Amino acid sequence: MSADRNARARRAFGTDRMKAFSDGVFSIAATLLVLDLAVDPPGHWQQVLNAWPGYVAYVVSFLTIGGAWLLHTALTERLTRTDPVFLQINLVLLLVVAFLPFPTRLIADAHEEVGAVRVAVTIYGLTLLAIRLLGSALDAYARREHLYSQPDDGEEAYERRSLLPVVIAYVTAILVGLVLPKVAVALYFGIAVFLVVPFGEVRRLVSRRSITPRPGETRP
Amino acid sequence: MSADRNARARRAFGTDRMKAFSDGVFSIAATLLVLDLAVDPPGHWQQVLNAWPGYVAYVVSFLTIGGAWLLHTALTERLTRTDPVFLQINLVLLLVVAFLPFPTRLIADAHEEVGAVRVAVTIYGLTLLAIRLLGSALDAYARREHLYSQPDDGEEAYERRSLLPVVIAYVTAILVGLVLPKVAVALYFGIAVFLVVPFGEVRRLVSRRSITPRPGETRP
Amino acid sequence: MSADRNARARRAFGTDRMKAFSDGVFSIAATLLVLDLAVDPPGHWQQVLNAWPGYVAYVVSFLTIGGAWLLHTALTERLTRTDPVFLQINLVLLLVVAFLPFPTRLIADAHEEVGAVRVAVTIYGLTLLAIRLLGSALDAYARREHLYSQPDDGEEAYERRSLLPVVIAYVTAILVGLVLPKVAVALYFGIAVFLVVPFGEVRRLVSRRSITPRPGETRP
Amino acid sequence: MSADRNARARRAFGTDRMKAFSDGVFSIAATLLVLDLAVDPPGHWQQVLNAWPGYVAYVVSFLTIGGAWLLHTALTERLTRTDPVFLQINLVLLLVVAFLPFPTRLIADAHEEVGAVRVAVTIYGLTLLAIRLLGSALDAYARREHLYSQPDDGEEAYERRSLLPVVIAYVTAILVGLVLPKVAVALYFGIAVFLVVPFGEVRRLVSRRSITPRPGETRP
Repeated sequence: MSADRNARARRAFGTDRMKAFSDGVFSIAATLLVLDLAVDPPGHWQQVLNAWPGYVAYVVSFLTIGGAWLLHTALTERLTRTDPVFLQINLVLLLVVAFLPFPTRLIADAHEEVGAVRVAVTIYGLTLLAIRLLGSALDAYARREHLYSQPDDGEEAYERRSLLPVVIAYVTAILVGLVLPKVAVALYFGIAVFLVVPFGEVRRLVSRRSITPRPGETRP
Repeated sequence: MSADRNARARRAFGTDRMKAFSDGVFSIAATLLVLDLAVDPPGHWQQVLNAWPGYVAYVVSFLTIGGAWLLHTALTERLTRTDPVFLQINLVLLLVVAFLPFPTRLIADAHEEVGAVRVAVTIYGLTLLAIRLLGSALDAYARREHLYSQPDDGEEAYERRSLLPVVIAYVTAILVGLVLPKVAVALYFGIAVFLVVPFGEVRRLVSRRSITPRPGETRP
Repeated sequence: MSADRNARARRAFGTDRMKAFSDGVFSIAATLLVLDLAVDPPGHWQQVLNAWPGYVAYVVSFLTIGGAWLLHTALTERLTRTDPVFLQINLVLLLVVAFLPFPTRLIADAHEEVGAVRVAVTIYGLTLLAIRLLGSALDAYARREHLYSQPDDGEEAYERRSLLPVVIAYVTAILVGLVLPKVAVALYFGIAVFLVVPFGEVRRLVSRRSITPRPGETRP
Repeated sequence: MSADRNARARRAFGTDRMKAFSDGVFSIAATLLVLDLAVDPPGHWQQVLNAWPGYVAYVVSFLTIGGAWLLHTALTERLTRTDPVFLQINLVLLLVVAFLPFPTRLIADAHEEVGAVRVAVTIYGLTLLAIRLLGSALDAYARREHLYSQPDDGEEAYERRSLLPVVIAYVTAILVGLVLPKVAVALYFGIAVFLVVPFGEVRRLVSRRSITPRPGETRP
């Protein structure tokens, strides 16, 4: 039965609906994060400020989902077609992305209790790691099955080599979190900023501005 | 009045907006499932692990919505036009899909109380069955009204023959759930995996890898 | 300042983004309705069944949003362009559609307390009425400003004449609800079914089936 | 690493996915606002009416998100391409837009306690101000990097000059809110109405109606 279902799916599926469904899950998961924030009872500045781990988790989760969406878009925009296994891996990736608000809420709710913070931060780190690994699995499958429109070039290979350092960073942060959970939250923040902020681009902009007075003119 | 309204709707409607609205409901329902997960109070591993039926229900519901979305996409991508009755059946299907987070939460909240688990699991199974039946009703209507762009072929007929085994599996699980609710949750998990994982495709990939050293070259 | 802003908006806006934003709000509002359902504590069938007004409100709200979306789609698909006032009316319509989950939750939460049910049902009816009136306002404005691609024909005029009976039905239900709130819920259900179910189309299908053995062949 | 990732992103990204993701976040954030409304316990009119600051905050937040979406659409519809820094600023803008339901809920929950209202209103005002500033930053960056399809004209320059008065209005309201929080809520309402309602257009319509008996005929 599955073989036939797949055959039909392969025939029927372009990439448009998959992109629409994926963009939907990414944007909804990112926006649902705000529901995890709670100040109870709402009151003076001190109470609002004491909830800081929740805000940090909100920002890290939003940037992580944003970064995963950027990667997903870069990946799926190059697809010429899709197939059932690709859709399946994509569905599991979306399942984990949609799960991220849960550990985010665990962190926001854990407050001061050390044991609860440790559990929350560990689940959080494992979720972030899973998102990254599944994104790479999607990319690896698409390459192996020749789903991309363009041949591999140096940049893509470079991007893939960067997987290992990122995984090492996540694993390190997860291990640190078992002892010092709040330090791990700071590490996740650093990784998220590193993955989303286009440092190279910023550097290029800054250096260009100091050299060329009229930015943009050197563009092709 | 309705006849006129329908006439107008038939004239005005392509399939694009219906797809956008449907993709929206599918992706939102899937992403809202995470709100059903709760660990209260958040704490040690034991408490998080004790909430396992909620996690299983999350995965089953996400895969079920994902599978229904795959079916819906395969179905609607072949449409050349739509009509009021089709839109109406589609609306009822979406109503039930959007309802799924409710029984999922019932399972997550039922904890250990046997009576509550039984009620939750039964409502859950009936919802899953309704989604499947409404998906088939949509397909049957589209065929009968010649809304599809292509004539029927063997694969579609095969897909339709598979409806009966799936319905039998759901009914069996619902009956089992009246006595052994947690076994029924496992059965729903099995059905969801069976419906979403492209076994035939996986088998093809595995067998091809063992024969041809350079995968993808045999593709047309 | 507004004049200039409007001028710019008029230049820049096609209808695509407005449709995407509107479809988003409609589908999200419809899907959020499920969060209003609650069985507390989750337990035996009796407790689940006692929550029936919440289920009815869920179905009525979902069908109302679905019906409003059908109307909105029929309306916006005929637009050739849009303008700031249209976008403004549309934004207010979406504001009220997005508000509907609130009175739906009021009904689901009101349980047996008569005063609470009356307040909830009245706010609910006023919201349904406002959605209908704003939909008509949008249509009236688009006609007056010649935003539609096609000239008026008999069917549209007929549709507009149907506004008055629907408004009378809503006002009647609101007044009934001040005395017999649960009867009003049944009336809202009836109106929603009447607005969404394509009776004329169903009648056509049924009658055709009894005459022509091979449905669809008489289609142009 | 970032430089290469950026290079790849620049190659792969059109503006379609960015628009889809952004429209998703805007429409979801707007629709989630309704979850912040709560009447507890649901009951008589007095209790529902006492919750008025929550309703006002709902309307202000919805109009603010609607206004930000209008601005975002006007801005992104003129883009010919996008780049990593633009996507990054956009992501931060969306992060703040998606955050708005949180201070909205703070206002809805603050009830009568003066200290809580003051804190809630201040965070609310800062969020509104940040949305406006990030929208302008997005516009400024797009201009500086020549991402727009059209050269600057008088209207755009006018729009940009209007930034200062709006920022002054927000800062004034934030300062007023430290002393008279409820007055600040009224001010935010006024600013939102001023930013969304197309006064100039309305004036044009009204004046035209009193002069020309058949509106629309003077259109080019």
